[in-house]
Amino acid sequence: MSFEISALFRPKLPAPASARFKAFPTYNFVGGHNDAASIPVEALTAAAARVIAREGKSLATYGLNSGPQGYRPLREFIASWMAESADTHDSADEILITSGSLQALDLVNQLLVGPDDMVIAEEATYGGALTRLAKLGVPYLGVRLDDDGIDMSHLAELLESQKNAGQPVKFIYTIPTVQNPTGGVMPVKRRRHLLDLAARYNCLIFEDDCYADLVWSGIRPPTIRALDAEAAVAEGRSNRVIYCGSFSKSVAPALRIGFIMADWPVLAQILPLKTDAGTGALDQMVLAEFCKDQFPDHIARLRARLKSKCDMTIQALEEHFGTAAEFTAPLGGIFIWVTLPEGVDTKRLEVAALKEGIAINPGAEWTVDGSNNRRRMRLCFGNPEESEIRGGIARLAEICHREFGVPERISNIEQS
Amino acid sequence: MSFEISALFRPKLPAPASARFKAFPTYNFVGGHNDAASIPVEALTAAAARVIAREGKSLATYGLNSGPQGYRPLREFIASWMAESADTHDSADEILITSGSLQALDLVNQLLVGPDDMVIAEEATYGGALTRLAKLGVPYLGVRLDDDGIDMSHLAELLESQKNAGQPVKFIYTIPTVQNPTGGVMPVKRRRHLLDLAARYNCLIFEDDCYADLVWSGIRPPTIRALDAEAAVAEGRSNRVIYCGSFSKSVAPALRIGFIMADWPVLAQILPLKTDAGTGALDQMVLAEFCKDQFPDHIARLRARLKSKCDMTIQALEEHFGTAAEFTAPLGGIFIWVTLPEGVDTKRLEVAALKEGIAINPGAEWTVDGSNNRRRMRLCFGNPEESEIRGGIARLAEICHREFGVPERISNIEQS
Repeated sequence: MSFEISALFRPKLPAPASARFKAFPTYNFVGGHNDAASIPVEALTAAAARVIAREGKSLATYGLNSGPQGYRPLREFIASWMAESADTHDSADEILITSGSLQALDLVNQLLVGPDDMVIAEEATYGGALTRLAKLGVPYLGVRLDDDGIDMSHLAELLESQKNAGQPVKFIYTIPTVQNPTGGVMPVKRRRHLLDLAARYNCLIFEDDCYADLVWSGIRPPTIRALDAEAAVAEGRSNRVIYCGSFSKSVAPALRIGFIMADWPVLAQILPLKTDAGTGALDQMVLAEFCKDQFPDHIARLRARLKSKCDMTIQALEEHFGTAAEFTAPLGGIFIWVTLPEGVDTKRLEVAALKEGIAINPGAEWTVDGSNNRRRMRLCFGNPEESEIRGGIARLAEICHREFGVPERISNIEQS
Repeated sequence: MSFEISALFRPKLPAPASARFKAFPTYNFVGGHNDAASIPVEALTAAAARVIAREGKSLATYGLNSGPQGYRPLREFIASWMAESADTHDSADEILITSGSLQALDLVNQLLVGPDDMVIAEEATYGGALTRLAKLGVPYLGVRLDDDGIDMSHLAELLESQKNAGQPVKFIYTIPTVQNPTGGVMPVKRRRHLLDLAARYNCLIFEDDCYADLVWSGIRPPTIRALDAEAAVAEGRSNRVIYCGSFSKSVAPALRIGFIMADWPVLAQILPLKTDAGTGALDQMVLAEFCKDQFPDHIARLRARLKSKCDMTIQALEEHFGTAAEFTAPLGGIFIWVTLPEGVDTKRLEVAALKEGIAINPGAEWTVDGSNNRRRMRLCFGNPEESEIRGGIARLAEICHREFGVPERISNIEQS
């Protein structure tokens, strides 16, 4: 009897995985991977041995005696670190540990939006946020960006026209500190302006701050959530900002530890949507044990290391692409947003480069208006070794020249 | 300006959490919690130190160089253990690590069913499976059970009537080995019968085997998936069984490690639905490192320990409830399914008992036809200490007598 299991799948599923994973590309300029040499292996080993020996028996219970919001010592560390580094004064009770910030994105979307809603995202933003909205059938608009983040006049225009069209905006999704992909940081004044507009148009702000610990200067502005907190309490109203953070970029992506910071009514309604009975215990326990004494030193070292990789990337771009690569030096993080000359199509460049082991993010996948961003690309420099950064960008320039005739000169040598 | 964030939530969300977690009840007879004394703390501590020291640098990448299906050494252990213990011969390539078997349930539901579909579940089954279907608006029917699992005549009737009604059944959800809540094991002959019926009616089987390692005898029947494998290959068709397993009951629930075993076309379509960029790395790594040498000894010790708690629970029920408590001794696992006399309402008993620190699962929440199972309850004996088992059941009998007049005699003393 013949039986084709795929005939029983639901309609309208996303495209299946095309092949099993084999290995990462040789020159891996995509993804949130981090610097392998900066993983604090010894400290994590010691932290794991300590915390498991001390609290291992609690693994016998779902939630480790901390309940569904996540391991309490980790939430307490996050609360204290957010207070110290970002002037944000939520307690452990306002924090929900998630399986990476990606689960936070899924939960917030589930809480807030369906096909009848409208979302505003920065015109260039995290691709995965856009594909998530698209999968849910949620429409979204892109708001213009400059080096200081969202263009507030354009935002006001969009909010007003959506209101007039009878489809008001439900939330504004922003990555204000080390914006993905631009690497910019939104100044405090603009954060306040954003809150004013959100208040005027009765919408929420979803503040995704995954890269915030990686500001080169080590000085973060207060979070948008913190800037709304005092007035919210004074006015007896909800804070209009749902905040998410992550340890993927500040410690290690494989740990899958992110968090949501929000008022209790928001968390209470998110908890029944988090149907996984908790986030991995050892990841939470080891991270908390490591962080409580060692996070500040670790993050300072990591920042310095990533800054040097960033400088090297910029140097390689200047050497091999020359004036053909335009970009603003990022203020932190793990990526650089590059604009190539008219005529370059980074989707085509991606395909050609991948054949030679070089992976890049084409601009069309990292922007709301993909067709107008074909000559842009995101290059992640966190994971490749120094030699891979230099070698990969040199080869990428050659491939780009072969495919599109630019750059015309590489390392000051005219290309045939 | 007033702002109530809940006014922006989506309609039709599940009920919010009513309060923050405080602590577990004193006598905790609910949930899949395990025996704290059986957590292999020393071995896990050693495994963690070893594997982090050896492979910690790989934490810098999403997926640990193993790709989105999960840490390869863990998948390899699962494949070898399933071959050895359950005559099931899928390779690591047919395994996807999930964040507990609950994520597996969510993923399989997302893959297969919506409100237009129909599912059959065992009439008494895992409550969380039923609430998941209900949340998705998926209708389901209950099939009768006896000590050997699904009643095949009733199943055939249901499949036929659904076919005739133009709403054929998409999948049959079964917990064949240590059924939850009955504790029974489906014999091989009935497994084959189940496959025949599924073939005749062109539906899938979703085999949830979370408790299978806890069969007292240590001898598991081959999985339903394995029984379909040879014919599927010979006939060049899909295996019609999607299998899920877990380490929550065999090692520790807080680890949140489960897995799906299925043909590649199924996994390829599930991967884009698993939007969390992987399951916690340390949980996977430490578990794999621990299991590869120590799982067989560990599981044998755990089984013996749980069997002794089971025996003690039965003894306490006999002592305190006498003939008022009917049950079949489970063949493994962590729970016992108890029927109380006519007139007892375990939802009311649950409320009264919780006031005195005793938590039970009322039968109405663990059955498809809740209203006809009001006098049943599930008692989980994995987590409470021996003294808590004895003390909790003694108090539960007193509360039950106070509320419903039964048992009439406790410890052979007539109750006033």
